[in-house]
Amino acid sequence: MPRPSVREQLVDAAMECFHQRGFNGTGIQDIARTAGVPKGSVYNHFENKEALAAEVMDRYAVSRKLEMLQDEGLAPVPRLRAHFQYLAADLERFSYERGCMFGNFGTELSNQSDMMRGEVDSRLDLWTSAVTEVLDQAREAGTLTTPLTPGQLGRFLVNAWEGAVLRAKVTRNRAPLDGFFDVFDSLLA
Amino acid sequence: MPRPSVREQLVDAAMECFHQRGFNGTGIQDIARTAGVPKGSVYNHFENKEALAAEVMDRYAVSRKLEMLQDEGLAPVPRLRAHFQYLAADLERFSYERGCMFGNFGTELSNQSDMMRGEVDSRLDLWTSAVTEVLDQAREAGTLTTPLTPGQLGRFLVNAWEGAVLRAKVTRNRAPLDGFFDVFDSLLA
Repeated sequence: MPRPSVREQLVDAAMECFHQRGFNGTGIQDIARTAGVPKGSVYNHFENKEALAAEVMDRYAVSRKLEMLQDEGLAPVPRLRAHFQYLAADLERFSYERGCMFGNFGTELSNQSDMMRGEVDSRLDLWTSAVTEVLDQAREAGTLTTPLTPGQLGRFLVNAWEGAVLRAKVTRNRAPLDGFFDVFDSLLA
Repeated sequence: MPRPSVREQLVDAAMECFHQRGFNGTGIQDIARTAGVPKGSVYNHFENKEALAAEVMDRYAVSRKLEMLQDEGLAPVPRLRAHFQYLAADLERFSYERGCMFGNFGTELSNQSDMMRGEVDSRLDLWTSAVTEVLDQAREAGTLTTPLTPGQLGRFLVNAWEGAVLRAKVTRNRAPLDGFFDVFDSLLA
């Protein structure tokens, strides 16, 4: 396996630091130390901490596996449930400590940086659209009984998920995620 | 009207700073400057920034007006809806920029400070219990048709609200809160 480039090492290190201490709690020096490179070399690869954070979000977005939402081997509602279960398992790996990077950055930075707010906004919109598309398919297949539209449900579920993840970060257990699935099943049964 | 004490001025100033820049983005110097007092006098009143943040959360908790949830002049479901509408109006006053201080601190600090995580956890629990109690009354009055228990619903609604507030902070408009009410009405109709 080829050695990861310094750029990749920096993105990995920043991902770790941002998850642990947030954006404002992480200095460029922390990222350089975690990556095992001199501080100056961070600026050879990234203009500033925001540019690095945007690339970390890109990598995080890939790890959300939105392509699961297009797997037509599963019926729409079980497919959507499997997607959220995948996200839950990912949170469990880190003892619910990390939360969602989109939610974390959205909460911490929306007031401080219009650029970061926009980055989070567009990624959450993309995810919401992918969820809504699955719900559109469920509606077409006649398996949605709620009078709520796929759009209403899709937007609501993404936000409710973010809230459950936030609460799990505070309680350090999966009860809030289980609670999400209880209502998911009730709404989409 | 008596002049506010230095302690009160500091709590007000810290509330503003924490809302605008979060905990890690706010220095003791920022709080002192906002309050118009010398930096040293902060430490005459508070041991550290965490102690000040806990007092800010107490003041924020009072502003949530949980007592609205005990107003038996309104039937349970409309009373609960009025409570969330009150919270929505409070967010609107600040153009959805602030979010919820519990959610903000929970997201930013759960990994950094067990003390702050505990402070947020206990306040969210208290709020969840108050919401659940209203839903218990709705169930007793026969006005809840969902098969979900009041406990399941209460926990879910608080978390879904936090998620909607987070999203509104990112979108800077009330659409995510309206989406919350759409599903609230659907679940509790």
